Amino acid sequence: MTDNNPIKPWGGRFSEATDQFVERFTASVSFDQRLYHHDINGSLAHAAMLAKVGVLSPGELQQIKDGLEEIRSEIEAGEFNWSVSLEDVHMNIEARLTEKIGITGKKLHTGRSRNDQVATDIRLYLRDEIAVICGELQRLQEGLIDLARREANTIMPGFTHLQTAQPVTFGHHMLAWNEMLERDFGRLRDCRERLNVSPLGAAALAGTTYPIDRHYSADLLGFSGPTENSLDSVSDRDFAIEFSAAASLAMTHLSRFSEELVLWTSAQFNFIDLPDRFCTGSSIMPQKKNPDVPELIRGKVGRVNGHLISLLTLMKSQPLAYNKDNQEDKEPLFDVVDTLRDSLKAYADMMPAITVNEAVTREAALRGFSTATDLADYLVGKGLPFRDAHEVVGKSVAYGIEQSKDLSQMSLEELRQFSDTIEEDVFDVLTLEGSVAARDHYGGTAPSQVLAAADRAEARLAARG
Amino acid sequence: MTDNNPIKPWGGRFSEATDQFVERFTASVSFDQRLYHHDINGSLAHAAMLAKVGVLSPGELQQIKDGLEEIRSEIEAGEFNWSVSLEDVHMNIEARLTEKIGITGKKLHTGRSRNDQVATDIRLYLRDEIAVICGELQRLQEGLIDLARREANTIMPGFTHLQTAQPVTFGHHMLAWNEMLERDFGRLRDCRERLNVSPLGAAALAGTTYPIDRHYSADLLGFSGPTENSLDSVSDRDFAIEFSAAASLAMTHLSRFSEELVLWTSAQFNFIDLPDRFCTGSSIMPQKKNPDVPELIRGKVGRVNGHLISLLTLMKSQPLAYNKDNQEDKEPLFDVVDTLRDSLKAYADMMPAITVNEAVTREAALRGFSTATDLADYLVGKGLPFRDAHEVVGKSVAYGIEQSKDLSQMSLEELRQFSDTIEEDVFDVLTLEGSVAARDHYGGTAPSQVLAAADRAEARLAARG
Amino acid sequence: MTDNNPIKPWGGRFSEATDQFVERFTASVSFDQRLYHHDINGSLAHAAMLAKVGVLSPGELQQIKDGLEEIRSEIEAGEFNWSVSLEDVHMNIEARLTEKIGITGKKLHTGRSRNDQVATDIRLYLRDEIAVICGELQRLQEGLIDLARREANTIMPGFTHLQTAQPVTFGHHMLAWNEMLERDFGRLRDCRERLNVSPLGAAALAGTTYPIDRHYSADLLGFSGPTENSLDSVSDRDFAIEFSAAASLAMTHLSRFSEELVLWTSAQFNFIDLPDRFCTGSSIMPQKKNPDVPELIRGKVGRVNGHLISLLTLMKSQPLAYNKDNQEDKEPLFDVVDTLRDSLKAYADMMPAITVNEAVTREAALRGFSTATDLADYLVGKGLPFRDAHEVVGKSVAYGIEQSKDLSQMSLEELRQFSDTIEEDVFDVLTLEGSVAARDHYGGTAPSQVLAAADRAEARLAARG
Amino acid sequence: MTDNNPIKPWGGRFSEATDQFVERFTASVSFDQRLYHHDINGSLAHAAMLAKVGVLSPGELQQIKDGLEEIRSEIEAGEFNWSVSLEDVHMNIEARLTEKIGITGKKLHTGRSRNDQVATDIRLYLRDEIAVICGELQRLQEGLIDLARREANTIMPGFTHLQTAQPVTFGHHMLAWNEMLERDFGRLRDCRERLNVSPLGAAALAGTTYPIDRHYSADLLGFSGPTENSLDSVSDRDFAIEFSAAASLAMTHLSRFSEELVLWTSAQFNFIDLPDRFCTGSSIMPQKKNPDVPELIRGKVGRVNGHLISLLTLMKSQPLAYNKDNQEDKEPLFDVVDTLRDSLKAYADMMPAITVNEAVTREAALRGFSTATDLADYLVGKGLPFRDAHEVVGKSVAYGIEQSKDLSQMSLEELRQFSDTIEEDVFDVLTLEGSVAARDHYGGTAPSQVLAAADRAEARLAARG
Repeated sequence: MTDNNPIKPWGGRFSEATDQFVERFTASVSFDQRLYHHDINGSLAHAAMLAKVGVLSPGELQQIKDGLEEIRSEIEAGEFNWSVSLEDVHMNIEARLTEKIGITGKKLHTGRSRNDQVATDIRLYLRDEIAVICGELQRLQEGLIDLARREANTIMPGFTHLQTAQPVTFGHHMLAWNEMLERDFGRLRDCRERLNVSPLGAAALAGTTYPIDRHYSADLLGFSGPTENSLDSVSDRDFAIEFSAAASLAMTHLSRFSEELVLWTSAQFNFIDLPDRFCTGSSIMPQKKNPDVPELIRGKVGRVNGHLISLLTLMKSQPLAYNKDNQEDKEPLFDVVDTLRDSLKAYADMMPAITVNEAVTREAALRGFSTATDLADYLVGKGLPFRDAHEVVGKSVAYGIEQSKDLSQMSLEELRQFSDTIEEDVFDVLTLEGSVAARDHYGGTAPSQVLAAADRAEARLAARG
Repeated sequence: MTDNNPIKPWGGRFSEATDQFVERFTASVSFDQRLYHHDINGSLAHAAMLAKVGVLSPGELQQIKDGLEEIRSEIEAGEFNWSVSLEDVHMNIEARLTEKIGITGKKLHTGRSRNDQVATDIRLYLRDEIAVICGELQRLQEGLIDLARREANTIMPGFTHLQTAQPVTFGHHMLAWNEMLERDFGRLRDCRERLNVSPLGAAALAGTTYPIDRHYSADLLGFSGPTENSLDSVSDRDFAIEFSAAASLAMTHLSRFSEELVLWTSAQFNFIDLPDRFCTGSSIMPQKKNPDVPELIRGKVGRVNGHLISLLTLMKSQPLAYNKDNQEDKEPLFDVVDTLRDSLKAYADMMPAITVNEAVTREAALRGFSTATDLADYLVGKGLPFRDAHEVVGKSVAYGIEQSKDLSQMSLEELRQFSDTIEEDVFDVLTLEGSVAARDHYGGTAPSQVLAAADRAEARLAARG
Repeated sequence: MTDNNPIKPWGGRFSEATDQFVERFTASVSFDQRLYHHDINGSLAHAAMLAKVGVLSPGELQQIKDGLEEIRSEIEAGEFNWSVSLEDVHMNIEARLTEKIGITGKKLHTGRSRNDQVATDIRLYLRDEIAVICGELQRLQEGLIDLARREANTIMPGFTHLQTAQPVTFGHHMLAWNEMLERDFGRLRDCRERLNVSPLGAAALAGTTYPIDRHYSADLLGFSGPTENSLDSVSDRDFAIEFSAAASLAMTHLSRFSEELVLWTSAQFNFIDLPDRFCTGSSIMPQKKNPDVPELIRGKVGRVNGHLISLLTLMKSQPLAYNKDNQEDKEPLFDVVDTLRDSLKAYADMMPAITVNEAVTREAALRGFSTATDLADYLVGKGLPFRDAHEVVGKSVAYGIEQSKDLSQMSLEELRQFSDTIEEDVFDVLTLEGSVAARDHYGGTAPSQVLAAADRAEARLAARG
Repeated sequence: MTDNNPIKPWGGRFSEATDQFVERFTASVSFDQRLYHHDINGSLAHAAMLAKVGVLSPGELQQIKDGLEEIRSEIEAGEFNWSVSLEDVHMNIEARLTEKIGITGKKLHTGRSRNDQVATDIRLYLRDEIAVICGELQRLQEGLIDLARREANTIMPGFTHLQTAQPVTFGHHMLAWNEMLERDFGRLRDCRERLNVSPLGAAALAGTTYPIDRHYSADLLGFSGPTENSLDSVSDRDFAIEFSAAASLAMTHLSRFSEELVLWTSAQFNFIDLPDRFCTGSSIMPQKKNPDVPELIRGKVGRVNGHLISLLTLMKSQPLAYNKDNQEDKEPLFDVVDTLRDSLKAYADMMPAITVNEAVTREAALRGFSTATDLADYLVGKGLPFRDAHEVVGKSVAYGIEQSKDLSQMSLEELRQFSDTIEEDVFDVLTLEGSVAARDHYGGTAPSQVLAAADRAEARLAARG
């Protein structure tokens, strides 16, 4: 019988070999080999635990350690022969270990199953990747805070509905982006904490009859402790979904930044320049300089949202405990990790290198009646109820459109057509500098507030420790 | 000109009235009136702040307070006349206030915009709803923990791949469900903390020129503080997405519970009975008793996943700051709230009332070679490497299938065909009670471990405070 | 026993009443009452068929017809009393019918079940709604084709990567939109054809023992024939998903149109004006005229994508035949229908009313080296390989950026720095009119091609019949 | 300057080299090399067209043909050196061609752009893959129709709500699956027809100034004609979305089949056996035979739904014409193609090999009061209104549950407790064979109807031509 499945770990019960196409179709080694490092680390901790409780002798433990470290070196040197017949990273490594150290290699699997093994591997992998991602995130935040300080006085139009609304400072805009990233950091940190528990020892689904010490192996791997329930441990993929949801939001933020960069580098806006090294050209139109990096990242939000749905769909209606469906968790998760990490890296590299065309942004803010709210506030200061002031300004703007004049270009007489409470001092509030400086409260766009906010933002980064 | 838009708060600049269809198409009052309570609370805090900084007089504040409370009563009595022409809940309430108290009503909008107002309202609303949801979640968890204790010794088959794997206890299974909910609670708590900041004072996008005190209004509303950046404040909908993602995971868990309940109430499984009051019948087949509640909740995960995608798609590529697109945030969010709350409530009501058919679950565990792993472990105890033991058992099972005999039904001679290390004591490990009791470690299925885990689970609930 | 569920059609087997909350939670009448018209039509056809095969007498048929038409009138007059206890639209109408005509009313349900009844109702409903949607779609297409003709000579910059690429005509751009809608029409038509089959007679899942004539009732309802398999008939929701997918694509197209309208109405682009009646203002900024309709529709694509995922998730892994989960199909489907229909209507109303700022679009096309490709083509005409010509132009553009000169503003000497094959005739190809007129082939942007394409587009509309 | 980007086709305008990380991040050659075959075919047609209109000489055409065929051979022999610096499959092949045949190679790009080139390639690729997919689909359908005939008389319980509803035949169930696939075929065929138009000649976005003949190159490539609008041609990805939506539905169907296979192979159902070669075992539980293939395919629906969302999100709000975002269309599309094709292949291989445990399915149908509807119909035949008959049977079933007796096991006296219209002939209708045979109408479960339906299904396959 074993002839049919000479190398399968589970061949005994089977009367025919796996179909060749099925073998390839169901194998995961082509993508899960990425987990080799964490698989070996998990095995080392499991082996150490088995030795502690007496299932392995010290000599056996040493053999296993040496064998696994040799295998790690082989893999890293590109000398490891991955086999699809051995299905996955776990069996590939175990088979090689047994090849190396004989019967002791087979003992490593005592008291565990691939079900808890893979759950452990992915948690270790994701924990490490979140650390890398948070590093890139922080680097981007530092760049934005620097830029905010550099451009704290640079005036640009603030938009709502992509219509000129009120003047703001470029630095203030950069700090808006930073806030989004700060929340992303919080979600990633919470996700990391929640996932940092050890499924090792859950075995196939019910635990094991061996006298294992789950706290010990959890400690060795830097987990905060063992998971609470074996059935849940082998079937839980919450962490992959929670991480992907956090990544979807982060990528959504980057898509928003990207949309703005694409707008700002258009001929119509021309607010900033991107360095050539983040752009590419056209094979047919020689004049083009395309903002490829922002565009591509804007597109990549789709990919991450898609993987989130993929994982949620995967888990829908799955009965306990482990089902083969779960093998489908890895490719989306890996791609979410890669996409988020690389997109953040590209942004962290790019943002410090942008140039703001201050003359252009200032001119744009001048146009579009951006100080209309200031006029309304001025009228309220003179005693009009806000809603009435709003109407006066609305009529002034209608007149301005008709006459092609901004508010600051009208004469006092012209302005007084709409309300005789307007006096000479109105022109003070209609300047851009006056407008932004007047929004001088916590979270407002006044340059002094931007600098204060940059300090607070930096302090938060520092407090992450 | 105002004739065209007699009641619009922004009519001054416009030269023709809004198209009738467009008015209905763009209005939100049909769904956002649900926010009236929090809108009024937000306005009360804003008014109190304006009074504190001297923009409103104490008398004006009192007028506003009285007017708003009267409006709240009108709404709750069903006597409020909602107008589509007034677009949204905010303008409806403000217009009514001005009707009641005259010019002072118009002053309430000083130093704020609908942009920060609606952002405040939704945060207040969602904060309250999360509290209600966490209440239902906890009630369900308490029910599961009770059930776990009640059925700590009840043996059922544990499944992987829906194939009988190893015996487990019903209580252990219930605690697996409880772990999923515990993580859900953590996500909801984190989301609530992150959203609990006050956008009030961000105004349209840039802050305001009035001398507002954002910390004061934040305090009055129970927020942990004001938001950091005005542009971000009016455009941020992270909280709706983060909440929906947490809800999608929670509903995914409920879909898994539901799948199991549907299976368990089928004639084939017959593991449990649901009380009639959670079931319905058929209009054509008189014998049917359908597990409608679990089925419906299983279906409802689609709805919540859909809303999550809706919100993520909505925010993709939106430039700062507020865009009208954002009006589309409310209906999905409201439906996510309702769906999650009601589904948890239905489960919290239902679970304590289920009956376990212990004889059936025990019989099912007996069949299917569920103690095969125990035999393998026995052989390892006798000195065989695990992988070799696995193969011996595999062959025994193949023989058992051929002979229609479970392992415990074979004679010693039959078993010894496959390995002569098997002896009389093998029959001790092949009992169900022996099998579950032997998985006696943290997180394992042994009844004593289930009771200990139930205690820990209860202690966590108690620690929520 | 029946006391417990006095009015339920399936009460006999049950020993306790449905929980009050459960009754509300599982009822669908609040949303499926929308199907009343098609439910009555389906019942009329079913009754006629029962009469044809002799199950009902002619007198009974007449009673049923009269009763149902009275009920239809009651509902349309707002006088029908919908009851949540009666669960759904079907039972509400049937109960009322029995109230009106006694025992004969109960006979109407002979040979059918709610499972095939609801499947019939939704198909009839969706078939009608698709017709309405296709009407709005066609109206929008007609508007675009008119606009294309009107603006066939209007030059604007064509963009790739939102960078000025080559001059195009506004009419050509409108026809690009029209192509997207043409494909949408094709998908809706295909969907309608595929769904237009009758599930009536599938009964609960297996067919019925009555001598029904499924072709007859299918004919009466305008279906192309009966469905092929009863199990599939009651569980199939493909049509809802296929329709939603087609709607998602159509809404994606509208989101693209909307993005462009929002850009084009910004101060920076200023390519077009939207009539005031499709815009709204700001409660705080009196100068604002926001393109609310396009923005809102851009946001609504999220809603439709979400419902598509909702329906796909709903159907994932459902075993045959009908499950209660399927009740969740209606709300998303209804909302997809409403959203697509209203969005198309808004667009069909709006597009004919836009004004193109031709001077602005022409000026924008002049800038940005939009004729650079023409220069390259000129050089190829003079014998340079394309890739070399590309490089010459690239260097000319770099020089132009440095000197702030467009290609057409350079002197011959300046141009000849980069290639001495350039001669006086180069200035002919550097004009905007020359550039667009030169793209004179099927599908190209030349005005003559735009007019020809408009004719073909109109002919296709006419051929729809 | 060219030193910085020595090999880029667009280097002239740029003053610094592309960042190394950016180059890797933005390159697509790692995945789009899959398109080489169709890229070469597209180039051959374009070259032939250029020769026809006189842009290339016959000799140049021959050089290009020979060069491209050599490149195809190099690629297929694994000897082609793909370069990330050359970004994508198009530039890699073109650069190699120029290396081979010199300056003529550069001329191939005359009158086209990568924008229309890639749009052409994907359409050609997808058209071919749809053909392969339809082949696997048809093979699966043939297998199901055969199985339906083989098991036309095999009785099993039909389920609604996973509760035993009425007896059906296994063959009828298989034909329900076949209907789903038949609709899938229709959608794929419609998608293929709609995508089969040629974007070649749209060039970058506006068409070209060369005297191209778009109908000629379209014909050469087997397209039904050229696309109508150049702007639309380079930005349209509808076909990828429409295909993915059709694939999502098809995978949803497979997830439903898979759910049923997983249920049916459980110990509790035990309705069928899967051949060992489509199953795998457990590393820890030697008795397990897991239905891996159905489980994995059930999981894979998530992947395809995810890619659908990815593509829809990608296209949301993209302004015309081509944007770099679109590069993100390929990986999801390729994975949808691979997943659907392989899943169908696995099913087409597997289904003919399943074994039905007829004794088990028959016994299951006997239990659960599956003929209760037949009893109700019997009573209606005796003159009771259906709703009253329903209630009589409901009470009989309640009695049966109490007494643990199926309806067919009750004595006449017992049955007559509930209605004295019941007579001896009742026992004829309470047999399984009587029940299924009585559903003898188009689409019903009677064996004769199943055979007739199988004939019709086969005729439809034959008519595909």
